[in-house]
Amino acid sequence: MSGVTVTDSTILERLSKLQIKHDEIINHSAVKNGQEWSAELSISSPGLNSISITKTLLFKPKTAKTATPTPVLVLAKESTETSSGLIGKYLELKELRLASEDLIKSVFPEIKNSKDDISVLSLQGPPIDENLHVLLDKSIAESENQEEKFALHLTESSSTILLKGQDIKSYLNSLTPTNDGIKIVDFAELKANAPAPSAPATKAAPKEKKEEAKPAATADDDKYNMAIQYKKDEDFSGWYTDVLIKGQMLDYYDISGCYILRPWSYSIWQIIQNWFDDEIKKLGVQDCYFPMFVSNARLEKEKDHIEGFAPEVAWVTRAGKSELEEPIAIRPTSETVMYPYYAKWINSHRDLPLKLNQWNSVVRWEFKNPQPFLRTREFLWQEGHTAFLNKAEADKEVMDILELYKKVYTDLLAVPVIPGKKSENEKFAGGDYTTTVEGFIPTTGRGIQGATSHHLGQNFSKMFDISVESPNKGEDRLHAYQNSWGLSTRSLGVMVMVHGDDQGLVLPPRVALQQVVIVPVGLSKGEGKNQPIYDACAQLERELIGAGIRAKADLREGYTPGWKFNDWEMRGVPLRLELGPRDIAAKSTLAVRRYDNNKSPMPLSDIGNTVKKYLDDIQSSMFNRAQEKFDSCLIPVINWDDVVPTLDAKNILVLPWCQGNQCEDDIKERSKSQANKGQAEDNKAPSAGAKSLCIPFDQERFGKFPEGENQKCIQCGEKAKSWTMFGRSEYELPATYIPQKKNLRVLY
Amino acid sequence: MSGVTVTDSTILERLSKLQIKHDEIINHSAVKNGQEWSAELSISSPGLNSISITKTLLFKPKTAKTATPTPVLVLAKESTETSSGLIGKYLELKELRLASEDLIKSVFPEIKNSKDDISVLSLQGPPIDENLHVLLDKSIAESENQEEKFALHLTESSSTILLKGQDIKSYLNSLTPTNDGIKIVDFAELKANAPAPSAPATKAAPKEKKEEAKPAATADDDKYNMAIQYKKDEDFSGWYTDVLIKGQMLDYYDISGCYILRPWSYSIWQIIQNWFDDEIKKLGVQDCYFPMFVSNARLEKEKDHIEGFAPEVAWVTRAGKSELEEPIAIRPTSETVMYPYYAKWINSHRDLPLKLNQWNSVVRWEFKNPQPFLRTREFLWQEGHTAFLNKAEADKEVMDILELYKKVYTDLLAVPVIPGKKSENEKFAGGDYTTTVEGFIPTTGRGIQGATSHHLGQNFSKMFDISVESPNKGEDRLHAYQNSWGLSTRSLGVMVMVHGDDQGLVLPPRVALQQVVIVPVGLSKGEGKNQPIYDACAQLERELIGAGIRAKADLREGYTPGWKFNDWEMRGVPLRLELGPRDIAAKSTLAVRRYDNNKSPMPLSDIGNTVKKYLDDIQSSMFNRAQEKFDSCLIPVINWDDVVPTLDAKNILVLPWCQGNQCEDDIKERSKSQANKGQAEDNKAPSAGAKSLCIPFDQERFGKFPEGENQKCIQCGEKAKSWTMFGRSEYELPATYIPQKKNLRVLY
Repeated sequence: MSGVTVTDSTILERLSKLQIKHDEIINHSAVKNGQEWSAELSISSPGLNSISITKTLLFKPKTAKTATPTPVLVLAKESTETSSGLIGKYLELKELRLASEDLIKSVFPEIKNSKDDISVLSLQGPPIDENLHVLLDKSIAESENQEEKFALHLTESSSTILLKGQDIKSYLNSLTPTNDGIKIVDFAELKANAPAPSAPATKAAPKEKKEEAKPAATADDDKYNMAIQYKKDEDFSGWYTDVLIKGQMLDYYDISGCYILRPWSYSIWQIIQNWFDDEIKKLGVQDCYFPMFVSNARLEKEKDHIEGFAPEVAWVTRAGKSELEEPIAIRPTSETVMYPYYAKWINSHRDLPLKLNQWNSVVRWEFKNPQPFLRTREFLWQEGHTAFLNKAEADKEVMDILELYKKVYTDLLAVPVIPGKKSENEKFAGGDYTTTVEGFIPTTGRGIQGATSHHLGQNFSKMFDISVESPNKGEDRLHAYQNSWGLSTRSLGVMVMVHGDDQGLVLPPRVALQQVVIVPVGLSKGEGKNQPIYDACAQLERELIGAGIRAKADLREGYTPGWKFNDWEMRGVPLRLELGPRDIAAKSTLAVRRYDNNKSPMPLSDIGNTVKKYLDDIQSSMFNRAQEKFDSCLIPVINWDDVVPTLDAKNILVLPWCQGNQCEDDIKERSKSQANKGQAEDNKAPSAGAKSLCIPFDQERFGKFPEGENQKCIQCGEKAKSWTMFGRSEYELPATYIPQKKNLRVLY
Repeated sequence: MSGVTVTDSTILERLSKLQIKHDEIINHSAVKNGQEWSAELSISSPGLNSISITKTLLFKPKTAKTATPTPVLVLAKESTETSSGLIGKYLELKELRLASEDLIKSVFPEIKNSKDDISVLSLQGPPIDENLHVLLDKSIAESENQEEKFALHLTESSSTILLKGQDIKSYLNSLTPTNDGIKIVDFAELKANAPAPSAPATKAAPKEKKEEAKPAATADDDKYNMAIQYKKDEDFSGWYTDVLIKGQMLDYYDISGCYILRPWSYSIWQIIQNWFDDEIKKLGVQDCYFPMFVSNARLEKEKDHIEGFAPEVAWVTRAGKSELEEPIAIRPTSETVMYPYYAKWINSHRDLPLKLNQWNSVVRWEFKNPQPFLRTREFLWQEGHTAFLNKAEADKEVMDILELYKKVYTDLLAVPVIPGKKSENEKFAGGDYTTTVEGFIPTTGRGIQGATSHHLGQNFSKMFDISVESPNKGEDRLHAYQNSWGLSTRSLGVMVMVHGDDQGLVLPPRVALQQVVIVPVGLSKGEGKNQPIYDACAQLERELIGAGIRAKADLREGYTPGWKFNDWEMRGVPLRLELGPRDIAAKSTLAVRRYDNNKSPMPLSDIGNTVKKYLDDIQSSMFNRAQEKFDSCLIPVINWDDVVPTLDAKNILVLPWCQGNQCEDDIKERSKSQANKGQAEDNKAPSAGAKSLCIPFDQERFGKFPEGENQKCIQCGEKAKSWTMFGRSEYELPATYIPQKKNLRVLY
């Protein structure tokens, strides 16, 4: 490959040489995918018509380690189905996978930020590497609409140029050694001719049933019924987003880092809300609502405290056309909002305990890559803030709340978590100690924090003077002991990551908006012939709803049963009941479980109770399966040599540890440098080190230390204090409220 | 009085002549009361210590109409109790009342905005009017702390000067004819010496019960137990705020126009939420959550539509220290946020109806005087947005939702409302028609809009292209028919205004966080002696809670029963059960209803059921009382001459009306000018005209038109189309979304 640096100017010069005309370059925010791109364009240039978004994919086929890589670069319309299996067959290459960052960098050396910046326009050359296959979608190269223009990036995903299909073809060919070296591919034909289509867009209906009704889905409908395009094991991040969007949990929004919570996800949050709210009310907690705005004066009351989250605070500076005298912040969290009023309201020991909770949204304007549910600029949560006369009462509440958080995960979301205490480095630095429920994402082998319950000690009460006269005469004024605790919509993301599969979402019955879908099957041609089946489905729906089950009969016409199966599988409905003429005759229905695809007939008599029990069983089986997986990946390790291999095998480590701050930093550094030693040729992104996740309260599950009381810390050799979970973390959580200390991460 | 205009400079010159030193003048936002003032000072000058906020009150005693008025001006510390009754007795003047705006203007001719600008410093003179009594709080004039400074306004409530007590005394005396004409008053002594204290701070316990436990309330406690300081009939606005703050519904916040919803009010909102959410789910509506942020591009998509609410939009322009590339708005309402996604999601007639609802908060940065619940810069609401294939379905939903809104008022809040249709002038101009439930505040004789349900027709669906192919082949694409409907926390304000009384809040049982308070009475001295009574109260609490009643035993020590009675009355708890030794012996409890103070013994056996029925009875009695009042103030008027007198008697008019826009304007103008004719000497603010409130769906309740089909419109003489409610309105509601047309008011 030539060593020339390709800049935007290089590209424009190339176009100019080829006498290709183009309009002005459109600048916008960086985009990660076609939907974001489309949204950006519609904002930047709302008047544009006849524009097609494209996608640029770089694949790596399996080759011997020593062989020269033969990467495959594909430019296709966003809407074109580009199955790696079919491309591999077409090129006679094995096991195409999306390329690693390293390979991307070798093909596009000047890429600035991420794979999102890939563009065929910025290829090195001419000539381009002869081992590089370049495939161009026929519907671009030979676009039937002369007016149609295709959106391509220049050297970054934040700029767009619009080109005609034939011009793109000329441009790419001009970069090849032969001036004619790219391949024009008709992907639709590729698919049609494939002997056994691996593209799973429409699943065939079960063979034993005769399907005669024709699918009448339109192009519009198809948009919502494309199968998940990524494998969970192969491109976890792509899979995650795809599942959320196609499962209708979320939709993109035209402000980066913000997402729409559609009913499919919001209903889960409501179920969590209702359950948790009832439970905390039993503990005497009351709900309230504080304004979303915080005055500068309040936010800055404690200069030390503002520092940590100041970079992420969103500021309102204008109302209508009037500049505000002072900017006003949108709450990133409510300590400085609420605690001045605690000081006002708490005047006597009789005013304690004060236990308030809020359901609201907070804003943290992060500039890192957003991730749905896990890192969003606005997110929903509850924040509990309580004040007690005695430390013992406060301590007890910390654990009571943690137990509720645990149940939200285990009982509602069917996600196993391990309760424990955060290390000094990882605790909420505003408080005395932090407890947490830690989850695990098997696909990535990473830990993820579920929710945290903090004891703040008297740190805030002294800062805000939340104090009362001692009930015992002669004693000094007493400062309240405070707790705070939070659970956010990130819990939904964890649930999706743990349970979802290559077909889409898998929802636990307790939180699914729709627990059961009833699908009519065995339909015949001819008007009115299927009415008895529809009636039976509607009757079944009524019966289930009457039994308190969230059931729905899918009586939409114009879709095949197979299409419907696929649709509801993608959306994760826990149980499908199929009902056809033979089922009706047999007074039975075929029950298909989403989480393991198990099929079994179910008698229609007493169906309400049967389904109820079946759903309970699905709920506990989903939990048990996830629990077993977590357990099997929770590996006590005594010898340092086992640390990195165990991590690399996607496990969580359980280490004998001294609980020292410096030692924790050392473990992270040491495991990181070892993990990355000699990994360069493996096309992998650098691996993270292991950080402490929590010190589990249940130490006994890991048994006694092999060396008993003399057990040494695996890193420093000092006396070990506890088994402690260490691992890679799903992502570095957003900082919230960081008084002075550096490592504080999260309030939620 | 001298005719000199008193400006800030005048005051500073006067101070200078008297050689009174002072620090720099502090400028801040205008304030309405001591709490706001205090908050402003803490922001503007956070370092200040030893400062006392003051209050300046102007009273008018009852005098013959022809007599010269002898107003009374009081300057006191904010915390000093200044009962008008005691001042009257002290000065031997009758029936002191807070002065009207006109009287204020005659004493302080240069007052700029409102009574909040009153300051003793800006008195006309020297000399001041000899008929003006000037009273100075002894704790100011003879402040014991030499460092203490008192905050006074100059000529506006947005500026503050800090002066020592003795300097204030000198200043005021220098303005009197004798140089010694002001009266120094020890208000505490005044109160202590009063033969029968009219200050209702602590209500005596019922006489038949022996009270021996001494009140041990501290000064801190007293702050929360002051009785309501305004009479509902005399100073409705002062009463309203006082009741909300002291009843612990709200607290002030340090950002003007924002209030804290404390559990006492938020719980009511939650009860409304739960009930309403269940009901709309039965109608097939699903909840979701759209981001609070709106891009400039979206908000401005329809330039015509942004105009109406643009002046109130809050803009985020900065995150951390980074200026955003484009400012981002906080949603003032969600049409332009949601409808682009409706266009995306609705692709086939099978996607209709789409029925989404959001529970969120919206921001409208109004610059008018805020009013708790009724006009706040951030408020909580639900906004429903639905789309249908057919108009008939949409029409039906408009009415279904309106019926639910009616029930929220009548069944939950015990507030009568009248469902009807808005006039063309008053409808939501973005839609085809607006339906409403209209309430009534008897104290002011004004109507108040409760909630609105709009049919938007195809206006928005055409704007945003929310369309589907017709299910009938060959037909054009169909644009959806849309509705939107909203109910906000203003409903809580209406409830307080309707039911509250001079003792404080009166809450309907169905929405009260605490339905029953149990108070131990007949207590004796001596440790442990009262334990059996406390035990009985706790037992009663358990029994009631077991029966599903929100009950609480007030076992706080150190407060007398009388103090507790007063406390819970102020907070509006519907039912008080008193339990003492004699009650226990008689297996009975004394039940006292909050809303009418009715007292009756209640047997303890089967108390759960008895109380339940009793609460139901209270609920319906409260509603019936309010309904009767509303009915009696709903006056059909046929002759124009009766219009203004009927309005002035605090009624709502029911007029035969032609439904013409111009005619509506004329009615407003004509009634306004007549009402204000010759009213100048009556010390009254100018009266508003009558606007149309709604065209009640139930026309028959008003009987047939006297002239039958020939009935003429009361204003223009054209044919009358309907009985229509006209009246003064509680306040001009905040504009929300005003496409072009001028008179659109509210979406909620």
